[in-house]
Amino acid sequence: MQNHYPPTLKKLISALSSLPGIGEKSASRLSLFLLSKPGLCEFLGDLIKELPFRVRLCKFCRNLSEEEVCGICKDKTRERELLCIVENPVNLLHLESIGIYKGYYYVLHYLLSPKEGFGPKELGLDSLLHLIQERGVKEVILALSPTLSGEATSAYIAEILKPFPLTITKLACGIPMGMEIQFADPLTLKKAFQGREHLKGG
Amino acid sequence: MQNHYPPTLKKLISALSSLPGIGEKSASRLSLFLLSKPGLCEFLGDLIKELPFRVRLCKFCRNLSEEEVCGICKDKTRERELLCIVENPVNLLHLESIGIYKGYYYVLHYLLSPKEGFGPKELGLDSLLHLIQERGVKEVILALSPTLSGEATSAYIAEILKPFPLTITKLACGIPMGMEIQFADPLTLKKAFQGREHLKGG
Repeated sequence: MQNHYPPTLKKLISALSSLPGIGEKSASRLSLFLLSKPGLCEFLGDLIKELPFRVRLCKFCRNLSEEEVCGICKDKTRERELLCIVENPVNLLHLESIGIYKGYYYVLHYLLSPKEGFGPKELGLDSLLHLIQERGVKEVILALSPTLSGEATSAYIAEILKPFPLTITKLACGIPMGMEIQFADPLTLKKAFQGREHLKGG
Repeated sequence: MQNHYPPTLKKLISALSSLPGIGEKSASRLSLFLLSKPGLCEFLGDLIKELPFRVRLCKFCRNLSEEEVCGICKDKTRERELLCIVENPVNLLHLESIGIYKGYYYVLHYLLSPKEGFGPKELGLDSLLHLIQERGVKEVILALSPTLSGEATSAYIAEILKPFPLTITKLACGIPMGMEIQFADPLTLKKAFQGREHLKGG
């Protein structure tokens, strides 16, 4: 159907179709919409071009930042002894939006995944070790998703951190609040049994 | 949740959210994806910026084109006496992809819609009248959607073209092929009765 479109429009549709969650139909609709808004094209085009030059990683925690040090690392009121390891900036923001954690973060950006070629080198743990020593961190909280690669990465990091005088913890795994037990999957139930809370005695 | 994002990222998310069919969540995911692809940012940013400068309207039929005259108007093998009026380039491409029509087109880009401020002036009928006279068009086919604004626009154009020595036709309205009569809406059924075909007698 797009054979009759002008070449620039076809190129734009194909580029937009390469983005996650955008099919050829949405790409076509977006392109025609943009065509009717020259001002937006100028603004949006510039923003997209500048994005990788403006946004970089905080030199301490590797969170997204437009300055050398991100807002969280600059915040001196946070609990200096806690360091929470997250997979990516989206997870960091999710934890921040809930507001239950007041320590600092370290963003991995990758999980171990031999299939995708992400090995220990990509995790960049040198800067993590440096941060732990420099800040005098006392507890490292592993907050990676309880998936195959998340678990493998947590285990690997825990192993690396073993020689250091640190408490290492991992977010609890179990039945989500509000879920009926009958709908919990076997693996989750197993984790819930293993990690069961002591209410009395011991 | 995005309060902790760097300003450029926030601006991009907000600009992408203004596009049709893209909510804040998709905009956020797209922005983070783009951030990880500097090459794509450069390419896509340039394409979007150039779009309105490269793609313009064919001087005859107002279809999208990168040259003064579009490929269809340049094609001398088409039926010179037929002119099909469509609402927008998407509809034109849809008709072309089916390949049942071999005349020329004229793209309105707007339908009459007093609510949205699209009156007779926006339809740009001067260039339509010019085209009809210059090409020696004998039949104008109104191929606008049978919606409220489509019908109003068809009626308006038919009225304007009345003084010219032309056949004016409109695409048939009726029950879509393959549809069970029980599911046809009352208005469509009424149109199907009014436009009933003669099979025998007279």
